[in-house]
Amino acid sequence: MELLKQRIMEVGVVVSDQVLKLDAILNHQVDPTLIMEMGKEFARLFRESKPDKVLTVESSGIPIAFATALQLGVPMVFARRKKTVTMDQDTYSERVPSFTKGIVTDIMVSAHLLSKGERILLIDDFIANGDAARGLIRIIEKAEAELVGVGIAVEKLFQAGGRSLRERDIRVESLARIASLSGGQIRFE
Amino acid sequence: MELLKQRIMEVGVVVSDQVLKLDAILNHQVDPTLIMEMGKEFARLFRESKPDKVLTVESSGIPIAFATALQLGVPMVFARRKKTVTMDQDTYSERVPSFTKGIVTDIMVSAHLLSKGERILLIDDFIANGDAARGLIRIIEKAEAELVGVGIAVEKLFQAGGRSLRERDIRVESLARIASLSGGQIRFE
Repeated sequence: MELLKQRIMEVGVVVSDQVLKLDAILNHQVDPTLIMEMGKEFARLFRESKPDKVLTVESSGIPIAFATALQLGVPMVFARRKKTVTMDQDTYSERVPSFTKGIVTDIMVSAHLLSKGERILLIDDFIANGDAARGLIRIIEKAEAELVGVGIAVEKLFQAGGRSLRERDIRVESLARIASLSGGQIRFE
Repeated sequence: MELLKQRIMEVGVVVSDQVLKLDAILNHQVDPTLIMEMGKEFARLFRESKPDKVLTVESSGIPIAFATALQLGVPMVFARRKKTVTMDQDTYSERVPSFTKGIVTDIMVSAHLLSKGERILLIDDFIANGDAARGLIRIIEKAEAELVGVGIAVEKLFQAGGRSLRERDIRVESLARIASLSGGQIRFE
């Protein structure tokens, strides 16, 4: 997606060979117009897969998942990272390491929000090692729902996340594919 | 806002006299069409205040803040609850208790995303005791930005949050105003 790549070149900050900071447009401040275009693109890519629901995990994935769900005309569910007092006791949960937070967290979805046979589209902002995506996929499996695909805003091709999902014959679409961040330079595929 | 009140009556679960669970439409699963209508309403209410930016705190406020910012044509910033490895060192932070999580968390905004003199509209899903809102307001004050108002999806009038802000001459608009949850019944003002 050219618009996203342009914006990444304008505002992306290469923190290290592994970490690209996009907090001006994606995961701290959000550009709503750009996010809506990303939602339209994911809806275009996955509409034929007839998702019943869009699933993401808090927090950075929420705007893109919301925009995608709006375009598809389906609900969006965001997995929570910790139990709150208003969280249903009856939940599916998975323990996942977080690449950006450097910690392990529990992600969970209330059981009443994922039904057997529902067609689920996963959306997230970044994929690094794919731990969050794999956790969400295990939750989908526990619910006996069906994963129709994974949409990622920014894929770092030099980390194993996207590849590991494709090797399981999961359809993964990413809007910006970064080949390298070495030397402080952003290089797209 | 009638549509929101209708949906609250349909799906709201009264957990206690203090806690209303709206996880089917607002803070776990999200109804994008409803959220867009809420964004339009907040934009209508606050457009004349000419906000430069919409501010919320992760996670449940994000969809509504996003929809509001989209309608106003301005960026949205969500305060983070913990430091991540991609978070700027130069941040404004405040320690706030969380009513729903029952814990104290640090909320923070990178300094480069809030500028002196910027006109900020706060948006959140719920207001209970107002701790999150007060934390965000202190962050706005540290940045020497200007608060133009506070938009809340669901205000529980029997808790002090909204009142405490209005007593400081802050404009607070809420889309659904709940007078009582006692006896398991949702009563609007």
